[in-house]
Amino acid sequence: MSADRDPWLLTPGPLTTSGTVKAAMLHDWGSRDRRFIEMNSAIRRQLVELAGAAQTHVAVPVQGSGTFAVEAMIGTLVPAGGKLLILVNGAYGKRMARICHYYRRAYEACETAEDVPPDPAELKRRLGADPAITHVAAVHCETTSGILNPIREIAAVVAAAGRSLLIDAMSAFGALPIDAASVPFDALAASSNKCLEGVPGMGFVLIRRSLLEKAAGNAPSLSLDLHDQWKGFEANAQWRFTPPTHVVAAFHQALNEHAAEGGVEGRGRRYRENCRILVEGMRALGFETLLPDALQAPIIVTFRMPADPRFKFQDFYDRLSAAGYIIYPGKLTVADSFRIGCIGRLGPAEMRGAMDAIRASLREMGVESGAPARAAAE
Amino acid sequence: MSADRDPWLLTPGPLTTSGTVKAAMLHDWGSRDRRFIEMNSAIRRQLVELAGAAQTHVAVPVQGSGTFAVEAMIGTLVPAGGKLLILVNGAYGKRMARICHYYRRAYEACETAEDVPPDPAELKRRLGADPAITHVAAVHCETTSGILNPIREIAAVVAAAGRSLLIDAMSAFGALPIDAASVPFDALAASSNKCLEGVPGMGFVLIRRSLLEKAAGNAPSLSLDLHDQWKGFEANAQWRFTPPTHVVAAFHQALNEHAAEGGVEGRGRRYRENCRILVEGMRALGFETLLPDALQAPIIVTFRMPADPRFKFQDFYDRLSAAGYIIYPGKLTVADSFRIGCIGRLGPAEMRGAMDAIRASLREMGVESGAPARAAAE
Repeated sequence: MSADRDPWLLTPGPLTTSGTVKAAMLHDWGSRDRRFIEMNSAIRRQLVELAGAAQTHVAVPVQGSGTFAVEAMIGTLVPAGGKLLILVNGAYGKRMARICHYYRRAYEACETAEDVPPDPAELKRRLGADPAITHVAAVHCETTSGILNPIREIAAVVAAAGRSLLIDAMSAFGALPIDAASVPFDALAASSNKCLEGVPGMGFVLIRRSLLEKAAGNAPSLSLDLHDQWKGFEANAQWRFTPPTHVVAAFHQALNEHAAEGGVEGRGRRYRENCRILVEGMRALGFETLLPDALQAPIIVTFRMPADPRFKFQDFYDRLSAAGYIIYPGKLTVADSFRIGCIGRLGPAEMRGAMDAIRASLREMGVESGAPARAAAE
Repeated sequence: MSADRDPWLLTPGPLTTSGTVKAAMLHDWGSRDRRFIEMNSAIRRQLVELAGAAQTHVAVPVQGSGTFAVEAMIGTLVPAGGKLLILVNGAYGKRMARICHYYRRAYEACETAEDVPPDPAELKRRLGADPAITHVAAVHCETTSGILNPIREIAAVVAAAGRSLLIDAMSAFGALPIDAASVPFDALAASSNKCLEGVPGMGFVLIRRSLLEKAAGNAPSLSLDLHDQWKGFEANAQWRFTPPTHVVAAFHQALNEHAAEGGVEGRGRRYRENCRILVEGMRALGFETLLPDALQAPIIVTFRMPADPRFKFQDFYDRLSAAGYIIYPGKLTVADSFRIGCIGRLGPAEMRGAMDAIRASLREMGVESGAPARAAAE
């Protein structure tokens, strides 16, 4: 790799962050420091505002990775007598099912293939057929494939059926608009390190206040009890247990940079442009995306593995890595593939640099076309 | 506060870290990066070596605060049919009871006052009386008071009774020696940000390998399942879920600095000297420690509140804070008190500076003596 810089991370995360976000970690904060407390309050306020939910929801940060936040959301909001219908079309939907298994919560998976979005009509049918279902969980952008799920239509069906919607918006929040007024949700989980471009180490859940108030005693885990965590923040604006102070300070800086870029609109615009450069460049080389453009979120793109036997993924990965660009293996069951991300502190220059490195790597490997073995049937 | 530096954190944590530890966070690491993976492997190896446990135990890091690690330890190791006897003499012992309550694990608290260590003879009696008790949990240093619990004697009793010992060594590990050969334990939980002087955001549990191998399916939480987490590390040396990469890099640097300082012996020596300067200085001003010296760990010191009505704790705290020294309120039920810590990247110069600031603050407040209302009865 280029010795003079960190590699650019074209992955689902951890992602590249700005120098100023990282520099925010060069201080040690006491957890009761007034300025640290103000940072936390600002973060909590900014997060609900990003979802147009300042009047209805509260933001509850939680230590750990995004999965910790998703687990905390399910544990705190789905009571022992509840039943969760999970819309699954990838690893993160499946992970929610696994959480229910650990928590001994009743659940049912409504599964489609990794390249097929959930069908709102089928969801409606399932909710009509099973009055025991109290909650529905959906993934906004499934990074397994990079697919954009129809969250607005899902939310409308769930609301019409009078159920509670929990959204895993991990890899979408901050770049793809979601407004609590038009996409009614009771809870939404995401993390510091995806489209908000903080460093990893904390997640958060936006929760409808009226629901959270009634959620005492639900959570099966002390550390992941968001009702108790929220009560702590309400009492003294502090975390119950030691906060990851440096990660919090970085996230505070990252949210300010998000606002300076024009919020969700500005951030989304940069990622769409990143995605366009990537997809056009790869298609020009013969590569084929798993998804049709209409289903592709500008977050991470899955490419089918080329047919050319000279294309060895590990070799390709290593060459790009040596050039300072980190891509990601595939995670699909439906097709042999690899992934390239468009998010994090990357812009057109980095995406064009990545395309240059990809072209050079293919040349060195003697690969003439990125076309997969058979034409895709989408 | 002095505008030109961060305040010194004389607290139970988050703590002051070195500039080089913080500077280790100025890079973005991919979670699959070979060098990042090597950092994790080095951390895991160094941690078991610190406890003389490289042959018997494995280190399993976990995202979150120290409480997350303690919860993960209990959840992963105490099975549904087990029963945990918890030695309680402060908030952290009580927190373990709360975790058992959440997890619906049978438990019993063996409680002493906050300034009284657990009695090994009473522990022996309880274990003899109740064969249902499968595990014992003890806190090495209870930061509620700063008391050093007799972990060696506790371990001997538990081993003789054939039960399993789980240690919360959060605020002691890395500064107070603990050797798996002479203090037999099955698990020990601590975090990145106490005596090891990393930044907060991850914990770890050292677990006897032969026990962990049999712990599949115990944990009530996916995120906090240390068996599953360990299997992940064993499979590909990677974290199951997004690691706090910057926190990990800082911890890696912190462990190298710990070794350079002479390991547990060197780190403990600095803290003992910090503690000596603090206690002698405070006693010279009339302040009284809660604990007799024999029970005082060189981690954090509890002082009884002075009788002088001109001493207002908040005023004292604010003056010290303005001078760049952060102390901590008390957490005791047995006495009105406050606490001053000796750990983190602090040395004699900072402790003497703190004493200067304390003397100046008392002078400004017109406080003539730090003596408490009545002579303590220890």
